[in-house]
Amino acid sequence: MEYFLSCDWGTSAFRLRLVSVPELKVITEVVSEKGIAATYQSWREAQKPDRVIFYLGIILEHIQQLEKKISLHLTQVPVVISGMASSTIGMLELPYQELPFGLDGAGLQTQYLKATPDFPHQGVLVSGVKSAHDVMRGEETQLLGLLTEDPAIGQEQVFIFPGTHSKHIWVNNNSVTGFKTYMTGEIFGLLAQKSILSATVAPAENPEEPALAIAFKQGVTDAVGTNLLHAAFRVRTNNLFGKLNPQQNFSYLSGLVIGTELQDLVNSNGQLYLVAGHALQKYYSLALQALGLTEQMQTFPAQWVDEAVVRGQFKIYQRLTD
Amino acid sequence: MEYFLSCDWGTSAFRLRLVSVPELKVITEVVSEKGIAATYQSWREAQKPDRVIFYLGIILEHIQQLEKKISLHLTQVPVVISGMASSTIGMLELPYQELPFGLDGAGLQTQYLKATPDFPHQGVLVSGVKSAHDVMRGEETQLLGLLTEDPAIGQEQVFIFPGTHSKHIWVNNNSVTGFKTYMTGEIFGLLAQKSILSATVAPAENPEEPALAIAFKQGVTDAVGTNLLHAAFRVRTNNLFGKLNPQQNFSYLSGLVIGTELQDLVNSNGQLYLVAGHALQKYYSLALQALGLTEQMQTFPAQWVDEAVVRGQFKIYQRLTD
Repeated sequence: MEYFLSCDWGTSAFRLRLVSVPELKVITEVVSEKGIAATYQSWREAQKPDRVIFYLGIILEHIQQLEKKISLHLTQVPVVISGMASSTIGMLELPYQELPFGLDGAGLQTQYLKATPDFPHQGVLVSGVKSAHDVMRGEETQLLGLLTEDPAIGQEQVFIFPGTHSKHIWVNNNSVTGFKTYMTGEIFGLLAQKSILSATVAPAENPEEPALAIAFKQGVTDAVGTNLLHAAFRVRTNNLFGKLNPQQNFSYLSGLVIGTELQDLVNSNGQLYLVAGHALQKYYSLALQALGLTEQMQTFPAQWVDEAVVRGQFKIYQRLTD
Repeated sequence: MEYFLSCDWGTSAFRLRLVSVPELKVITEVVSEKGIAATYQSWREAQKPDRVIFYLGIILEHIQQLEKKISLHLTQVPVVISGMASSTIGMLELPYQELPFGLDGAGLQTQYLKATPDFPHQGVLVSGVKSAHDVMRGEETQLLGLLTEDPAIGQEQVFIFPGTHSKHIWVNNNSVTGFKTYMTGEIFGLLAQKSILSATVAPAENPEEPALAIAFKQGVTDAVGTNLLHAAFRVRTNNLFGKLNPQQNFSYLSGLVIGTELQDLVNSNGQLYLVAGHALQKYYSLALQALGLTEQMQTFPAQWVDEAVVRGQFKIYQRLTD
């Protein structure tokens, strides 16, 4: 095998990358807004034709775009699909894998897809993972791809994936033993845009202004040990009492919500790993610093994070086909 | 004085009641949607005429409606105004009173309004109260009206006012010493209607169904010691795992948010007073019961709560004019 196709299919975005093997270099990629939610909608509007074929058709469109970009036939190149494609609104619903599962991919649920004349690629669809009260689809594959070597055995590690629905994933002895979802990004958006607080905050034009970082860190430390339902109202009084201007107050609210998420890690003895793209890495680093967690924290480079899904998918594929 | 007019002017509603003195019986009332926010909007659209006169005009309209209802001239009957009328978007902005203030009304900020030919009523406008990080306008007047006798001296009391922005008010030795706002109702609404969770919840047609109360209490106890950003995601897994139907899940989410608010009182040694209208009284009582706080809790009758503002305003007026 010289190449494989990495399909990262999220709720609102679709991303397909052509990857060379074994060095796992991304040759080229296409990204579109044909996420799982939009695809599900189109499938329903098309009177629900065969679901797998319909969804594979979307992948095929993107494969053809890749082929045009690089003037290369990709027939027979295998495709690995992770993210929301295995969900209730996805291509083929797969049951969630239960915890624990190994960092080498052992125990993850997958579904093999045979090549057909219409879709001349063999494929692997990766399922999500569940705990007693929580679910994830996608982060498990990213996590596998993050680590080229096994982390220190015997020490607990927590991997922090910030986002609309942040995940904290616990690893012990090369095994994923627990995880928690936090609705951080979504609740921040609702508070900043839809609540009474929206009148008191505004995104900054120059995000490098030092007063914004100060307000952000104040938000983070104010969050610790308080109740978000109460603490959020301070965003209103910051404005009423003339303490912060709307840009600073936006930063304060962001700190308050991120601090609320991260305060659960304040008494953790484990090693913390921050797994974030460039933009969120900055804010989460600042927040972890404000919480005095810098010493036990390591940050993955943003590009490594971006490509983790590719490496995780390859690990899963290799394990299945070796 | 035989009568006074009680004007309870909230952000989104206007309520005027004619009250007989000294027994404080409500003779009749008018309610409209001309709350402070709508009135401020009309005032701006009218090119900002004299603000006090404009707002008094709204009160006068409602006084005339009362006069029609009961065929009685109310000229010279004094009016006491509390709520948002003294806010930045109100009739006349009054500075917030700082804590503490007395339960007899000593220390509350008020503004006397002289009768004029256009508005033939003397009036009193009550200001709001602030602490270092919080504000309220309206609840201070309700609190004064709740208590006909002074509560037990020497014991801390917490008065719980549930709502869009719930308030917990601390009273020590007949003095209001602290309060906290919780954005409970607003955040519940955002989560139930605007978040990813909205697809998994639905209000019940028959709210008396026992399974709803069970789900509500589960939400309350699940909230204790957890982080709302994380706990809220359980509403999604309750649905994904088939644990609760949408009606039960709506109840669960309500319990989760109310439980998040009330958990701050779990270690309180004080006497708790629930100050709620009929609908919220039911849920907050259930929540306080689920938290094991029933023994230290007393509930004010819903009608007493509804009329507290009238009694509070009279207490303030009497103090000023005696």
